[in-house]
Amino acid sequence: MGRVSTGISHRDGTGEPKRRGRRPGGQDTRAALVEAAREVFAERGYNDATVRAIASRAGVDAAMVNHWFGGKEALFTAAVQIPVDPAQLLEHVLAGPREQIAERLLRLFLTTWDEAGGRAFAAVVRSVAAHESAVRMLREFVTTVVFGPLARELDLDRPELRAALCGSQMVGLGVARYVVQLEPLATADHDTVVAAVAPNLQRYLTGDLTGAA
Amino acid sequence: MGRVSTGISHRDGTGEPKRRGRRPGGQDTRAALVEAAREVFAERGYNDATVRAIASRAGVDAAMVNHWFGGKEALFTAAVQIPVDPAQLLEHVLAGPREQIAERLLRLFLTTWDEAGGRAFAAVVRSVAAHESAVRMLREFVTTVVFGPLARELDLDRPELRAALCGSQMVGLGVARYVVQLEPLATADHDTVVAAVAPNLQRYLTGDLTGAA
Repeated sequence: MGRVSTGISHRDGTGEPKRRGRRPGGQDTRAALVEAAREVFAERGYNDATVRAIASRAGVDAAMVNHWFGGKEALFTAAVQIPVDPAQLLEHVLAGPREQIAERLLRLFLTTWDEAGGRAFAAVVRSVAAHESAVRMLREFVTTVVFGPLARELDLDRPELRAALCGSQMVGLGVARYVVQLEPLATADHDTVVAAVAPNLQRYLTGDLTGAA
Repeated sequence: MGRVSTGISHRDGTGEPKRRGRRPGGQDTRAALVEAAREVFAERGYNDATVRAIASRAGVDAAMVNHWFGGKEALFTAAVQIPVDPAQLLEHVLAGPREQIAERLLRLFLTTWDEAGGRAFAAVVRSVAAHESAVRMLREFVTTVVFGPLARELDLDRPELRAALCGSQMVGLGVARYVVQLEPLATADHDTVVAAVAPNLQRYLTGDLTGAA
């Protein structure tokens, strides 16, 4: 308690990370929690990474997680650098007619990442490409935090497959629009993207996957 | 002519890359062409990168491109590290009933990348995430070399949008299966993946995109 990592671990002769002695305050605490969360989520996975363990790693009180993030989910998205709160996302996407669930998900995705700028999505892809821990965090995001709960909420067959397919389409759309910038997808307005992609995403979420192909 | 880059540029006092003086022979020539191709494709794009210019950059005769790769397309895929010949891909995918075109494309994709190993796809993603030149090469691959010609061959409305959507689904599938390894997509057999994904890919290729969503 009481000591915060500066973001760079200095090892001394004992082999233990040497942590700088500055007391946590404001943004220092927030940054320390994000850094600790990246480590603990990557080590243990989403479910086994407790708020207590993350706060302890950051050297701050567990109440700071609620103070700065409102909870574990929001801390996780801060750690993955995904600019959306999973709880709000699920609430928004599940409110309204089920046959428009893909459209709501797509519009939220486009609004969120367009606002964050293409570089934000590219940064996530770069992080995933370079670090195994980021791969695990993205996997947790898709399976445990967002698309898994969404697919289970729909109470249909094969929720895991639906979540993975949904994740594949969203990641592919993001890479096409923001990273590789494939035209006309890269500059298309939201209505055009929704008209093109929503029926496909809707099939992954609520359609028949038993192979009428 | 007559001097081949070793793959590492050594600069001398003149500011010019100093090229080693070994005569091209066998694998040296092939490697020099791949390296030169990466540079020239990235600088000029696929259409404006001539075989002559690439051979000249590598310091070898243009006939070496046909000798080692059979042509510009195969040299391009070697440069992008995508283990498929675009000409063979198009011929294979376009042969047979049009309503099964997505299935053929998916089976070829899965066979190719499963054989190359998940790390091969991850290497392409890592390369794209890290280098703007790789982004441009992947963009060229989707729009100019593979999915663009495929979409135009189908002779339907909005071939560019179809190519980009098709690219988004294939890239998303590859990231989900090989990089993020989302289960059950990561270990599903080809029939399962085809049953789940082919109807969506088929809609992108030949379906109605005008927004019945």
